[in-house]
Amino acid sequence: MQTTPPQTDHLILGIDPGTNVMGYAILKTHLRNSEVVAVDVVKMSRLPDQSAKLRKIYESTLELVETYHPDILAIEEPFYGKNPQSMLKLGRAQGVVIGACLHAGLAVFEYPPRKVKQAITGRGGASKEQVAAMLHQMYAFDDATACLDATDALGIAVCHHLQNRLGAPLSSRMRGGGWEAFIAQHQDRVVRK
Amino acid sequence: MQTTPPQTDHLILGIDPGTNVMGYAILKTHLRNSEVVAVDVVKMSRLPDQSAKLRKIYESTLELVETYHPDILAIEEPFYGKNPQSMLKLGRAQGVVIGACLHAGLAVFEYPPRKVKQAITGRGGASKEQVAAMLHQMYAFDDATACLDATDALGIAVCHHLQNRLGAPLSSRMRGGGWEAFIAQHQDRVVRK
Repeated sequence: MQTTPPQTDHLILGIDPGTNVMGYAILKTHLRNSEVVAVDVVKMSRLPDQSAKLRKIYESTLELVETYHPDILAIEEPFYGKNPQSMLKLGRAQGVVIGACLHAGLAVFEYPPRKVKQAITGRGGASKEQVAAMLHQMYAFDDATACLDATDALGIAVCHHLQNRLGAPLSSRMRGGGWEAFIAQHQDRVVRK
Repeated sequence: MQTTPPQTDHLILGIDPGTNVMGYAILKTHLRNSEVVAVDVVKMSRLPDQSAKLRKIYESTLELVETYHPDILAIEEPFYGKNPQSMLKLGRAQGVVIGACLHAGLAVFEYPPRKVKQAITGRGGASKEQVAAMLHQMYAFDDATACLDATDALGIAVCHHLQNRLGAPLSSRMRGGGWEAFIAQHQDRVVRK
């Protein structure tokens, strides 16, 4: 009898679609390791209307799928703080992404924003800048393309990886050896009592 | 010099995606006339999770596009009355539909629910049942498949037709001659002062 080992190699597509910018990231994972393949944004502010933006989001998602062949989509599942109309718009943008990815056979996973922040910084209430700073510690990637919309998308992909790799403590994936190394490098960020 | 006449023949796909049921309708239009080609629902209540439902919505939409080759998608654009979380879910379901249709080259039009009701019954505050009753007056279609989710979808398609056909007064499209005939046939519904 054959048993297949749990699959540990993935290409995770993280997408954070907004009204004017869609952030995306591709994270390649192997066992407990991972590396950033791409992190960037698609700009949509010059497009004339919502329909054109949704089309752009759909086409960009398909292009990412065809270029990198990811097997997983990781996307946010927000719960609070927005009005119904902006949630409808966000939902539509996400739906366009999810539709394109389901069609291409990707598995779709969702994470609430607090869980993403918690997984990466250890604090659910961390700011976008703190998440970005931690991602820069964990991975090598080009600063030029990595604005906050792009690092948000990377954060969601990294969250999926951290939640699903096999039994590793959360801090061990960080480049440079985890919290201890991070603290050693950033004495100014340590609050002492 | 050639001028192209305004295109008046359309196949309008109306879709009303919900959590457990997706209503759809195909309306064929020629000049000021129109007929119902299909009006039915896709049931999703037995599917295990949101992801499976979104996949079903995507696949059903593609199937409708491939079967009927519509050139227009008409869909609701709700503004009020739902909480952010249900608007996110609705937005995702709509986004999946819009993504599939944009991909297939359809033009997408949106109408607020009040406008749909106003266009069909003359009253923005009409009930779903009143909209359905009026649609039954306007068109011949099978009662068996036409539950309220299906007639809601038909209503959106009809609204697009009524808004965009060339200069006809609203009531003239009704089967049997408009409000006058409707009133003559339904004396019990007339409120007299």
